[in-house]
Formats: sequence, C-alpha cells, structure tokens
Amino acid sequence: MKIAVDVMSGERSPEPLVHGALESLKEHNASIILVGDKDIITSALKKYPHDKSRIEIVHSTQIIKMHESPTEAIKQKPDASVMVATQLVKNGLADGFISPGNTGATVATAFWKLGRLKGVSRPAILAKLPTSSYKYTAILDVGAIPECKAIHLVQFAVMGAVHVSKLYDIKSPRIGLLCNGEEETKGTAVSRKAYKILKKLPVNFVGNIEGRNLFDGSIDVAVCDGFTGNIILKATEGVGLTIYSLLKTEIRKSIIFQASALLMVKVFKELKKKIDYQEYGGAQLIGVNGVCIKTHGSSSTKDIKNGIKVAVKAVQNEMNGEIIEKLKEYGVNKLNWHFWGEDPEDL
Amino acid sequence: MKIAVDVMSGERSPEPLVHGALESLKEHNASIILVGDKDIITSALKKYPHDKSRIEIVHSTQIIKMHESPTEAIKQKPDASVMVATQLVKNGLADGFISPGNTGATVATAFWKLGRLKGVSRPAILAKLPTSSYKYTAILDVGAIPECKAIHLVQFAVMGAVHVSKLYDIKSPRIGLLCNGEEETKGTAVSRKAYKILKKLPVNFVGNIEGRNLFDGSIDVAVCDGFTGNIILKATEGVGLTIYSLLKTEIRKSIIFQASALLMVKVFKELKKKIDYQEYGGAQLIGVNGVCIKTHGSSSTKDIKNGIKVAVKAVQNEMNGEIIEKLKEYGVNKLNWHFWGEDPEDL
Repeated sequence: MKIAVDVMSGERSPEPLVHGALESLKEHNASIILVGDKDIITSALKKYPHDKSRIEIVHSTQIIKMHESPTEAIKQKPDASVMVATQLVKNGLADGFISPGNTGATVATAFWKLGRLKGVSRPAILAKLPTSSYKYTAILDVGAIPECKAIHLVQFAVMGAVHVSKLYDIKSPRIGLLCNGEEETKGTAVSRKAYKILKKLPVNFVGNIEGRNLFDGSIDVAVCDGFTGNIILKATEGVGLTIYSLLKTEIRKSIIFQASALLMVKVFKELKKKIDYQEYGGAQLIGVNGVCIKTHGSSSTKDIKNGIKVAVKAVQNEMNGEIIEKLKEYGVNKLNWHFWGEDPEDL
Repeated sequence: MKIAVDVMSGERSPEPLVHGALESLKEHNASIILVGDKDIITSALKKYPHDKSRIEIVHSTQIIKMHESPTEAIKQKPDASVMVATQLVKNGLADGFISPGNTGATVATAFWKLGRLKGVSRPAILAKLPTSSYKYTAILDVGAIPECKAIHLVQFAVMGAVHVSKLYDIKSPRIGLLCNGEEETKGTAVSRKAYKILKKLPVNFVGNIEGRNLFDGSIDVAVCDGFTGNIILKATEGVGLTIYSLLKTEIRKSIIFQASALLMVKVFKELKKKIDYQEYGGAQLIGVNGVCIKTHGSSSTKDIKNGIKVAVKAVQNEMNGEIIEKLKEYGVNKLNWHFWGEDPEDL
C-alpha cells in the first residue's frame, strides 16, 4: 500500500510534514510518496534517519496557496503538489493521499480527478465535531452539495456510517438526520422523504436530531445538506472563538482572575484546541474513487502522522468497497434507487 | 399603552414574574396586565408596594406546561394564560404581550390569533446570538418557516433591520444572508434569488455571510430559512454547553487548576450565562399583528423587566408600522412583489 503526502501546501511546509510522514512509518506497513520540490524534500529527509525503501519522492513544481480561488488555481497550476498527489491515486500509483492545503482546491481536485464511487450519486465532505465526552460526531455533508435530494441524504447516511465503523471501530453507528425538531413531521420535503427511507433501511437510524445533539454524544453520524452543514461547521468554530474571547475579557477584569488564569494556561490551550474544528480531523472526502484526507492548514508532525494513519486504515479496511456494497445491498445506489419511487432520471 | 404579561407559564412562576412586572413600572409609562390565577397573583402583589392604577389582573384558569405538544395544548387549553394574554392583544385591550412559557405554544398562539402584518408573507422568529464584542447579532428565522421562498428571506431582512434599528438604535443595520460561502454564486437557488433582490434594495446589505460571521460582530442581522436558523440556534447552545463541560473536565485534572478555578467561579458563571442563548433575549415574533416577546423559561425578575422594556419600546417606536411601510416602500410586500418577476400566486 502507498499513501501520497502533499508536503508543500501546508503553512508549516515542508519539514514538519516530512517528519510526520517518516514518524508514521513506525505505525503501519505502507510506503509513503512525498510529493513536492525534490531538493527541498531531500534536504528535509536528511535530518531524520528512516527506512529508505519505504519512502519515494515525486517531484512537483507548483503550490496552490491557502487563499487562491480553487477553480482558478486548478486550471493554472497543473503541476501543483495537491494535483500531482491526486493524479498518483488516479493512476493507481498510490492508494490514497493527504494534503494540508487549500480545502476548496483539494476537494475540487479529488472530485474532478478521482470521480465517484460506483453507485454514489454525489460525494460529500465529512468533518468531525467535538462532544463533551471527548468523542466526536461525524457530520456530512459540510459543503460539497448545497442543495440535496433525498437520495443524497440517504447515501450520506450510509457512507458516514461505513466511515465511522471502518475507521473508528464503532459497531452499528447511530445515525441522525439534522432537523428543526425531532418529530417526523418536521423538516423540509426533502428531509422528510429521506427520513421515511432511512427508517426502512437496516441501519441504526435514530430519527431526526436537533442542533444540540451534534455535541452531546447521542449520535455518531449527523446527516444534512452541504448548505446547512457548512454553516454549522463555521458557526461552531465562531462560537468557540467567541467564548474564548469572552473568557479572556472576563479574566482581564481582576488581578485575582489574571493570577488564577496564569495557573490555568494549559487548560485554556487545551480548550482552544478542542474548539478549533480543524484541529480534530479537518475535512475528509467520501464517495470519491480513492481515499482523500484533508488535514489542518497548519498541520504539525503529529497531525500528518494521524492523517496518514486514517488514510491507511481507510485503505486497509476497504472503506470504499464497503460503501459500494452497502449502497447496493440497501437498495439505495444510483441504479436501484427507483425502487423508492423517485424518477431515476432525476438524480 | 398596555402590556400583558403571562405570569403563570414560567418555571419560576409567578412571584419573580409579578415582581419583575412591578419593577418595570419605574422604567416606562405603560400599564401592565398580569394574566393568570387571580388569587395567586393577588397574594404575590401584596408583597411589593406598587402603583395600583397601572396594574390590572386578568384571570385565567389553565397553564400550558413546558413539555406539552403546542398544537394539542392550544386546542385543549383555551383558557391558558398565554392564550388569554394573546387574546387581549387581538381584542385591542393590550398593545403587546410577553410570556416565559412553552415556545412552540407561544409562537403558534400568536401566529394563529394575531395574524400577519399587512404585506407580510410569513412571520418569523427572531433570536439573538452573542458576539465577542459583547454585542448581539439578530438572526431570523429560527424556526417558523423551515422552507422559504425568496420573498420570505427578503422580508425577513427588512423586518430584522427595522427591529434592530427601532429597538437597539442601530442606524443602517448591516444585513447578511447566511450562506455556505461569501461568493454571490454560493448558496441555494432560493438564497441566490434573495441575494439579487437584496442587493437592489436601499438597505445596508453586506452580501452572503458564513457561519463564523454570526459571532464576530461584523453584521447586525443574519437572514436564513427556519430550518437552518433553528439548527444554528440549538447548535450554538450545544457548543457552549460542550465547551463548558470540557473546561470543567480539564480543571478537574489538577489540584492547582481546581484552586485557580475556585477563584474564577464568577468568570465561569458569567460565561455560562453568555453561552445560554435563552439568557440573551430568547425568541421574539416578528411580522405578526401585535408585539410578542418570548422570554427565558426560567425567567427571573430582571428577565421579565427587560422583556417588558423591549415590548414597550417596540410599541412606542411603532416597529410594526415601520415594517409595513418599509416593505411597501421597497416594493417587497405581498402585493407589489410581482415587480421582482415571481408569480405572486406562488407566495
């Protein structure tokens, strides 16, 4: 197995990323393809002793920066590290890739180059939200498909459940459909249709869930359209930063508070990390023909190591094969969806 | 001017609510109608000296409890305090009402009994979100209309802007359309249509905003459909509670942290209050023929006093008259909406 790592697009690239890739070798049997400027990578490699037989370099000359327009960048930089890494997967030279770069560009490249898994109507972006029990809730879609049909929501549910069961060993993941109330009658015409179908599938569908359930540990997978999911993800980050800022303001009000806060710096740092959604996994693409992990823009050695671990597990446990199989088995892939009474032309 | 106060439906009813109503008398010239069990209210009134000429009691025999189904409760309890208070507004015997009770029942009663303002296509529920600058962002709709058309979003924008300008003296409020990205091309077909129209209106429309902008103080009014808004509101509460709980867990890890935290109890209490969305205003109904404020379920003396202040200001500054006028002036009321090229039959 080979995992391609775009070591050029992160804010701290390339050294900590190269280091992270080398560190990961101790934890799995896969080989790593480092994608980026050959000279820079070679000099970074010299600093860390490693098993040379499991490391390859694939040269690329361009980098897509964080604030570039994804669609423009993809057109203008065909030799960007993220494009080259994706192409390796497309050509079967790598089994998966990870990138810490521009989210839009990473997602667009993967969708465009890799295409969809057999039977998948639309791929989705999956993110993780923190819960009070120090676990996570997977949420999809957080931005790929702003307007969904029922088939998309149903497929997101199945793909999300396969993802968490294969990657985090959660048996029979609890799936919730994000809604403006718990009752079956709540929601939109599309969400109500998805509800009716999900209720009939052999999955652990707990029904409609409310916004607060995303964070209380009561579900493992939250399903929604990309419009709602994207707003939720960014709002979560916004609330976190606001609370952190209010906390700082309150603390500044008294010398005693400041002294106490000084003793608690570690607590606040931990807290800040927890409320930065990018810290706990970033976005992962699901439903595309390959494994694609998008890590934090300022990914550290540890983040890259963890990202590779997730990619390896997804490949090893055949996540994508299981998605194809389950969609077919449940009668919700593109080809057998017409059993649910919707015009298959309309997908 | 008369404001009806449902003093029976809150978790701490009725004494702190009666007290709050009496306290409010010092801050405005309106009279108060206390709605609820006459004997209970009379005995609560005896505890606080007050100007009898400005206090009336209207008897009601039933209470809608917090966890009752709104639609059922409204049918089965025609003499519930919230129903009686709303009826007073309908009959012109009060100018507005406030209730700390069951949100669904309060909203349903107001929509049903009061009807819509002239030209309003759909009423909305407006809530306030905290920002790091200790100010608030108004957001609507947070649950009345899950599936919106463009006219609804445009009218929400106008109603929200009138609301914050009349109630919080914000001149030329900055209006943002909640979206999965800032670009004009992002969003759904409906949100893109609303964007195009809002851009042409003489309001301070800043364009599409992202989830994080709800909390960074960059806008005064956020507009979205009730499906998204409701999920956002409840997710905000959920994130807040999760962060609070993570903070407690981190603090428990060391004696030094615990000692420091003890000194900072006040800070944490303030923080908890800030992250409970119901603490900072609860839900307000907008677009109905009357003023309706829904305060926190466990409203204290101060909450009721503040709620009455807001109701008085809305009546005094003729918020509803201004809404009717602006919708007409901008060409976005129900009757002149066809100028925007949408079938008026379809509203």
